[in-house]
Amino acid sequence: MPERKRILVVGGSAAGPKAAARARRLDEEAEIIILQKAPDLSMASCGYPYYVGGVFNERSQLLSTATGVIRDPKFYLNAKNIIAKTETETVKIDRARKTVTARNLRTGAEETLAYDRLILATGALPKQPPLPGIDLAGVTALHSLADVDYLRQVRDEKKTARAVIIGGGLIGIEAAEALRLAGLEVTVVEMLPQILAFLDWELAKLVENHVRSKKVNVLTGNGIAGFKGENGKLAGVKLADGTELPAELAIVAIGVSPNAKLAREAGLEIGKTGGIAVNKYLQTSDQDIYAAGDCVESENLITSGRVHAPFGDLANLEGRVAGENAVRGNQVVFPGVIQTGICKVFDYTAGSTGLSEKAAREAGQTGIETVISASPDKPGYMKGLLLVTKLVVGRKTERILGAQVIGPGDASRQLSQWAVAIKGKLTVEDMANADLPYHPNYSSAIDHGIATAHIMQNKLRGLMRGVSATEVKKKIEAGEKPFLLDARGPDEFEQMRLGLGEHLIPLGALRKRLGEMPPDKNAEIICYCKISLRGYEAARVLMQKGWTNVKVMEGGLMAWPYPREK
Amino acid sequence: MPERKRILVVGGSAAGPKAAARARRLDEEAEIIILQKAPDLSMASCGYPYYVGGVFNERSQLLSTATGVIRDPKFYLNAKNIIAKTETETVKIDRARKTVTARNLRTGAEETLAYDRLILATGALPKQPPLPGIDLAGVTALHSLADVDYLRQVRDEKKTARAVIIGGGLIGIEAAEALRLAGLEVTVVEMLPQILAFLDWELAKLVENHVRSKKVNVLTGNGIAGFKGENGKLAGVKLADGTELPAELAIVAIGVSPNAKLAREAGLEIGKTGGIAVNKYLQTSDQDIYAAGDCVESENLITSGRVHAPFGDLANLEGRVAGENAVRGNQVVFPGVIQTGICKVFDYTAGSTGLSEKAAREAGQTGIETVISASPDKPGYMKGLLLVTKLVVGRKTERILGAQVIGPGDASRQLSQWAVAIKGKLTVEDMANADLPYHPNYSSAIDHGIATAHIMQNKLRGLMRGVSATEVKKKIEAGEKPFLLDARGPDEFEQMRLGLGEHLIPLGALRKRLGEMPPDKNAEIICYCKISLRGYEAARVLMQKGWTNVKVMEGGLMAWPYPREK
Repeated sequence: MPERKRILVVGGSAAGPKAAARARRLDEEAEIIILQKAPDLSMASCGYPYYVGGVFNERSQLLSTATGVIRDPKFYLNAKNIIAKTETETVKIDRARKTVTARNLRTGAEETLAYDRLILATGALPKQPPLPGIDLAGVTALHSLADVDYLRQVRDEKKTARAVIIGGGLIGIEAAEALRLAGLEVTVVEMLPQILAFLDWELAKLVENHVRSKKVNVLTGNGIAGFKGENGKLAGVKLADGTELPAELAIVAIGVSPNAKLAREAGLEIGKTGGIAVNKYLQTSDQDIYAAGDCVESENLITSGRVHAPFGDLANLEGRVAGENAVRGNQVVFPGVIQTGICKVFDYTAGSTGLSEKAAREAGQTGIETVISASPDKPGYMKGLLLVTKLVVGRKTERILGAQVIGPGDASRQLSQWAVAIKGKLTVEDMANADLPYHPNYSSAIDHGIATAHIMQNKLRGLMRGVSATEVKKKIEAGEKPFLLDARGPDEFEQMRLGLGEHLIPLGALRKRLGEMPPDKNAEIICYCKISLRGYEAARVLMQKGWTNVKVMEGGLMAWPYPREK
Repeated sequence: MPERKRILVVGGSAAGPKAAARARRLDEEAEIIILQKAPDLSMASCGYPYYVGGVFNERSQLLSTATGVIRDPKFYLNAKNIIAKTETETVKIDRARKTVTARNLRTGAEETLAYDRLILATGALPKQPPLPGIDLAGVTALHSLADVDYLRQVRDEKKTARAVIIGGGLIGIEAAEALRLAGLEVTVVEMLPQILAFLDWELAKLVENHVRSKKVNVLTGNGIAGFKGENGKLAGVKLADGTELPAELAIVAIGVSPNAKLAREAGLEIGKTGGIAVNKYLQTSDQDIYAAGDCVESENLITSGRVHAPFGDLANLEGRVAGENAVRGNQVVFPGVIQTGICKVFDYTAGSTGLSEKAAREAGQTGIETVISASPDKPGYMKGLLLVTKLVVGRKTERILGAQVIGPGDASRQLSQWAVAIKGKLTVEDMANADLPYHPNYSSAIDHGIATAHIMQNKLRGLMRGVSATEVKKKIEAGEKPFLLDARGPDEFEQMRLGLGEHLIPLGALRKRLGEMPPDKNAEIICYCKISLRGYEAARVLMQKGWTNVKVMEGGLMAWPYPREK
């Protein structure tokens, strides 16, 4: 019988506890120790914004099992025979001696612990720009439970009126929602031209419009110059363009970086994203050291490139693999990621899986085709809600490379479908004839995702030429005069319309009113309707009647992110 | 330029109109005629139970486009240049002459119409057992819009107190919910030992328990002997076992059969399921005749067997393929089905994709492995709701063959994920490390489906031996005395327990109380908890401490379909 192994796990948030638990299930005899810098363990950090916003009010729920037991050191010891040392910072790894040095943050005492296998789950750290005033009271991140306690107090005290959120990413937007729920006046400042960088611009803009409709001020393409204080407290935020926003609270949420300091100092290989480099067994460049979670660099399964994918679900999956391999040798692999993310934005859901068009181009993917589609998630009689999807595929392979879905409808199911399709290397044809669960309480007879695949098929086969709202807008601004054909009914036109000189010819009248179309059969014609289904049908009529340059504005008015006349 | 083609479409419900619309989009010149026996076109028949139940009250919503336009012959003519003849029954196909004979049901007049291509979309018919009294007033199906109008009237008049539903399938259960919503006393009578035959027994029983909790009486393993009338009106339903249920309303919902009469009389090949035989282009044994929708027989992509899959979504997908091939030659294929279904059962969702264990065995699949898992769909702090999944995989290939999901949680997303995974021939490992959209508003950090894949992996790799609640129940009834270990806490045990002589040893105390375990290391031990996560951890401890016959009751108490002591 081999001697009792000691497994040290550095980090007690997501990947660490999962690795430790998996190791224990596979090796009852090993000594397993978690070293955790923070006072708490296994915090449900994805729930932080909802506690801050008052969606729930029991702080302990962030730290409890499903049956209400706090995941503290006593729980780990009793239920899992795992020693968890909290408020214990790991300050050094001595790879030659196979030891780590840990400091007790309460007493300052240091101890040296030997390991047989070490698992690094040191997580990520919020980026903190070196701006003047960043240390003022009232400037915080939304990352640690201490941040959360502070923000919850702000909410409960109801003394703070104005907040600025620096960064329009996932955390920034969730923070904006939480603070709106708490009754604050909120401005989001984003340096990029759009919020939610995992989305392509057109979809991000639609989400931004929704955020604005919830009375959140959104400033894109604007950075932060610094924070202005009064008596050590935040009084305002200075923007790069010189404007100043009065505010008593600022949340800096410009993203996270892998916390790889310990690994770097120990001489472990660090990837170019700054994450710890690991092989498919999640083994670092030292064969006795594994790493998992937000501190590692992962392989993107679509591009084969290396990426930093700091998501709570992946941290758990990686922890499970690292924990097993640490006690049993390299038995299992973590295959890589496709970078799936989803978030709640007030009444919208927004998410992306695989590559956005932007990400595909940045990764050097050539020959891609995209389509934007809009339709309700289920029938009107079951109160269907809008979904807008942008699908990215390889034009030759017809393989699905990415999908973004936003809207008030059930985007979670849509993104899940696409995520599995991308993982399984499915093609447009596979999804166009997929046998999905249909019932009017859950989807339309032609599921929104299948409808999207159908439109993509039509494009790939030349039955439809698409043009995005962005392209149409550019054409108009460049002084081009495409013939804009709105194929809806007069009532609909009265309620909502672009007002760009478009021609209203309802689909049902089109065949009789072809004489109103441009006599030049090569004139550019752009058809649309509310979601561009009738627009597509109109385009099919015109294409078959001899017009050669007929396009469909993808997603119709529902995907038009700019102001309309009505 | 070729002469103008004439496409005749028989059937105007789902597949027919879709085929006609697709044909039009691809061939502006063809003459396209729909012959529809019913007075209405393109009815949203999956919405019927919700109109009957009063979930919505505008009958026109069943017949309208998303913008509120009724899909009547005028709509088809104007918007799609399709001639739709309603109340027109197709009575004969003359394949030699390439004509059909159609009868106008209003006038009785017959006409003969020539076709270049014929598309049969004749749908399915509800099975009507030849029982005494079936023609009594008050006995109906829930199939046609006329049935729906009758049932809605029953609801609105509020004169009917008691209903019996014959058949506990999807339509029967939806009808039960609709009539309960309408305030009736409802009994469902099902001949099989379970409701919802697409589920395996254990899951169906859990759904049945939920149906009963909504005050619906459910009688399984009982057939109908006949209907008793008074003055031509239904007064009661006689059951096979001799009991009689007083009732003023009976809905016969024992399934549907392909409506292949016309095809059969025309000498087209009919499959052994009774559906019209078609090739992958949806072409019948006559190359000029296509068929789509509930009237055809389909290939099951998992077993390669032939099945009847009467689902509204498939009807649309098939109609699209048949419509294209009818005008353009055999350009596109319909690949086949995996038999995915989902339904709403009061506060539960229940569905299946791919093969159930029962279906797999009936199809002669050997070497399958199953697992039942239970867990919430999202974290407790976001009000997670229970899901119970049964997964069926090939033991050697580890390929996913089927998944059933039930419960109050988001089963729609789960079933969609599994449906795509099955379509893509994904394995357990693919799903165990899938990169799915995670956010606490939509799923748990370890998605319920991924957790299910993990448990399956543990089983396949011998880390866990599972036993179903059904098997445990059988053991107990057979007088076996397995050591039942409930690994929950004392409070939980006080609130809910089996009461079968189980031993309560909380997981956190197990390592110190091993002395209470059977001294015989080969004794059968069955561990469980609420969902059997702690049960699994307990089993891992015991297995590693030398007990050789340790099992986990899959899904724990949440998957126990029998009465409990508490």
